[in-house]
Amino acid sequence: MTQENIPVEELLELVNAKQLRKIKTILSEMNEVDVASFIEQLDSEKMMVVFRLLPKDLASDVFACLPIEKQKEIIDSTADAELTTIIEDLFVDDMVDMLEELPATVVKRILKSATPSTRKLINQFLNYPENSAGSVMTAEYVALKKNMTVEQAFAYIRKNGVDKETIYTCYVTTAQRKLEGVITLKDLLMSPYETVIEDIMDTHVIHAMTTDDQEEISKTFNKYDLLALPVVDHENRLVGIITVDDAVDVMEQEATEDFEIMAAMLPSEKPYMKTSVFTLAKNRILWLLFLMISSMITGNILGHYEEAMAKVSILVTFVPMLTGTGGNAGSQASTMIIRGMTLGDITPKDIFRVLWKELRVGIICGVILSAVNFIRLAIMYPGQELICLTVVISLFATIIMAKSVGAILPIIAKCLHLDPAIMAAPLISTIVDACSLIIYFNVATVLLNAYL
Amino acid sequence: MTQENIPVEELLELVNAKQLRKIKTILSEMNEVDVASFIEQLDSEKMMVVFRLLPKDLASDVFACLPIEKQKEIIDSTADAELTTIIEDLFVDDMVDMLEELPATVVKRILKSATPSTRKLINQFLNYPENSAGSVMTAEYVALKKNMTVEQAFAYIRKNGVDKETIYTCYVTTAQRKLEGVITLKDLLMSPYETVIEDIMDTHVIHAMTTDDQEEISKTFNKYDLLALPVVDHENRLVGIITVDDAVDVMEQEATEDFEIMAAMLPSEKPYMKTSVFTLAKNRILWLLFLMISSMITGNILGHYEEAMAKVSILVTFVPMLTGTGGNAGSQASTMIIRGMTLGDITPKDIFRVLWKELRVGIICGVILSAVNFIRLAIMYPGQELICLTVVISLFATIIMAKSVGAILPIIAKCLHLDPAIMAAPLISTIVDACSLIIYFNVATVLLNAYL
Repeated sequence: MTQENIPVEELLELVNAKQLRKIKTILSEMNEVDVASFIEQLDSEKMMVVFRLLPKDLASDVFACLPIEKQKEIIDSTADAELTTIIEDLFVDDMVDMLEELPATVVKRILKSATPSTRKLINQFLNYPENSAGSVMTAEYVALKKNMTVEQAFAYIRKNGVDKETIYTCYVTTAQRKLEGVITLKDLLMSPYETVIEDIMDTHVIHAMTTDDQEEISKTFNKYDLLALPVVDHENRLVGIITVDDAVDVMEQEATEDFEIMAAMLPSEKPYMKTSVFTLAKNRILWLLFLMISSMITGNILGHYEEAMAKVSILVTFVPMLTGTGGNAGSQASTMIIRGMTLGDITPKDIFRVLWKELRVGIICGVILSAVNFIRLAIMYPGQELICLTVVISLFATIIMAKSVGAILPIIAKCLHLDPAIMAAPLISTIVDACSLIIYFNVATVLLNAYL
Repeated sequence: MTQENIPVEELLELVNAKQLRKIKTILSEMNEVDVASFIEQLDSEKMMVVFRLLPKDLASDVFACLPIEKQKEIIDSTADAELTTIIEDLFVDDMVDMLEELPATVVKRILKSATPSTRKLINQFLNYPENSAGSVMTAEYVALKKNMTVEQAFAYIRKNGVDKETIYTCYVTTAQRKLEGVITLKDLLMSPYETVIEDIMDTHVIHAMTTDDQEEISKTFNKYDLLALPVVDHENRLVGIITVDDAVDVMEQEATEDFEIMAAMLPSEKPYMKTSVFTLAKNRILWLLFLMISSMITGNILGHYEEAMAKVSILVTFVPMLTGTGGNAGSQASTMIIRGMTLGDITPKDIFRVLWKELRVGIICGVILSAVNFIRLAIMYPGQELICLTVVISLFATIIMAKSVGAILPIIAKCLHLDPAIMAAPLISTIVDACSLIIYFNVATVLLNAYL
């Protein structure tokens, strides 16, 4: 839809025909993301030929967009001098992402090719804990001084802004690099040239600490509609910034993680198609095992009522309907609560309001579903009023129970500093299954006393 | 974490003590998002007192951040002249969001208070279909002409940029408002003053059409790391822009919708705590009913084998383990595939690669889970080799079947132009439940022939 169509076919023909000059002209006009996705499709040899054609600036932008295997291939077939150019042009955050994935020998070679100051920076950034603000931020920001005039600030930005990740939000720091204020390029542009930065900067700077969790960071971006967020160390010194595009990546990554955890998997690091079969199996087997063993308990409960089922054998045919509906009702509730907590709409102190809400939702759903069942059973099993009543009462109680369990468990998980996402469909269903069978057979025992 | 703590307690005391000047000073320094979340907590009367204290610029920013009920209260107790000021200061996208929620009488009053040009714009924007690019975009962008010099462009931006939603990406249009090029403020700033825009603008503009789906829009933002995306009509005339903060909102909203659909609910429009019990119940009941009726089929299958279960009563105790594990294995697969399709990593043409992958994952998981079960059964039921074998074979076959079903159904849904998210845990579990019982009792019939 949005972008102009990329002439992949035409480009491939040109590559095969070695029409290098034409390729160069076309690629130079294209967006780096599109160039990268074209290059990715070529075999190693052709990829290197095409990559070398790219103008220097585009080359490092394209390099940053390539997947790690392709980056490694390029590094392996690039001479040290050229490698230095690529490395020095990369933003620190992209560099760190890459280094974390590459084998140690390649990392060594890269660090050797980097200038001493870049090397120092990389080493510092590699030390921040995974998923912290420090691991997402980059070092290329514009730092102004508060006694500069707007005119001086513009001169500074024109001179130093080219290789900054953003120039639209500028930070004001002291000589000791402590964060004092923030000013947008828009504010600068809207102010007279002689204005002093101190008079127009905003001193209430929304900022993060290097150790803050990346999930919190993306929430802050969302709440305040930021383009960039400054990151300070424990002495309030500005050490980096996070730009909105990286915050968006974090958001998507966290959502993907939640989807995976909520489907009883360990979160994966790579896209599905690039994850090996073994890794996929490894991420899934633990929860499958745990849930399988838990469901054996449900089996034992069923076994416990073997006699009742043998006597009133029709009872067993309602088991899938009861446990299934209970599981679904419960995971509807838990999904809403988990997502609400992720988005910050629900906090643990809302527990009673949530429970009260789910109880009422449960009553409405329970009444409707029980009524439908009552009609069906009355038609299908005429004269079996007690069995009909057993099923209907059990269904109603199961739905209320399921909604309550689904509402409360994610909040309890949060209070215990566990990820609420584990309290999603699979675990809730397993718990609700067991509870609904206990309800069912107890109701049956009371009502069908004469038969059992 | 990131922002300075908001002195809510102190502010509330000041409001009660009617220390209006002090309140004004504190609020004027605060971020509009924080002011809005403070104001929200006050009762109507106090809210109006505090809202009127706000400087004009801040007032309309705060207004845009308030929830719809509070906006309505403010509109109701504001005189026409004042209302015009607020309206004219709002961005069209925020205005449209608000108008779509307000009762007709209030909408009429707002349109009456707006200037004719604003009124025309609002009416145009209200006509774009829901969830289209047109419904998310705003009209406040910077449009330059290609024969301007950089210096003229800066003069233009300084004069007209204040009330634009962004000035960091500027668009170059013809006299007929056709989109010709794009240029960032950074490019302008890095170029000499006498440069003509035409020479430095990018003519390959990534753009959207008014009718494009908002989900595609947010994918484009993500792919190209954009700050703004221009939206054109069918004659390539620039009609609006979408900024990254709105694209991020769309992203979160689409993820929330997917979570809800995947847990068998109709997507909700509002946050959980603000949704009424009836709406929650209404969103859930349809799927609960449908799944309940489907699970009756599973019950009938179970009923079909009543006799077998009566003879070898231990068989029934393995049912929850088989159906549960099958459901979990299947929804693991379907969740990965659904999410992969949402992110664009998996397309329908990958169907065979996906299936082959899931088959192998299924074999690995199946072998491990069956082995664990074999050991457990051998210990718990010594001498019952055939029953043990029945369970183990059924479990293995169920897992393979579940992974395949979970892999294929979301892709088929996509091909049928249905939302793949409906093929998540609830529906997959219901389908897998029925299939696993058929597998189980067929294996049992063959192996336990003598007993049955």
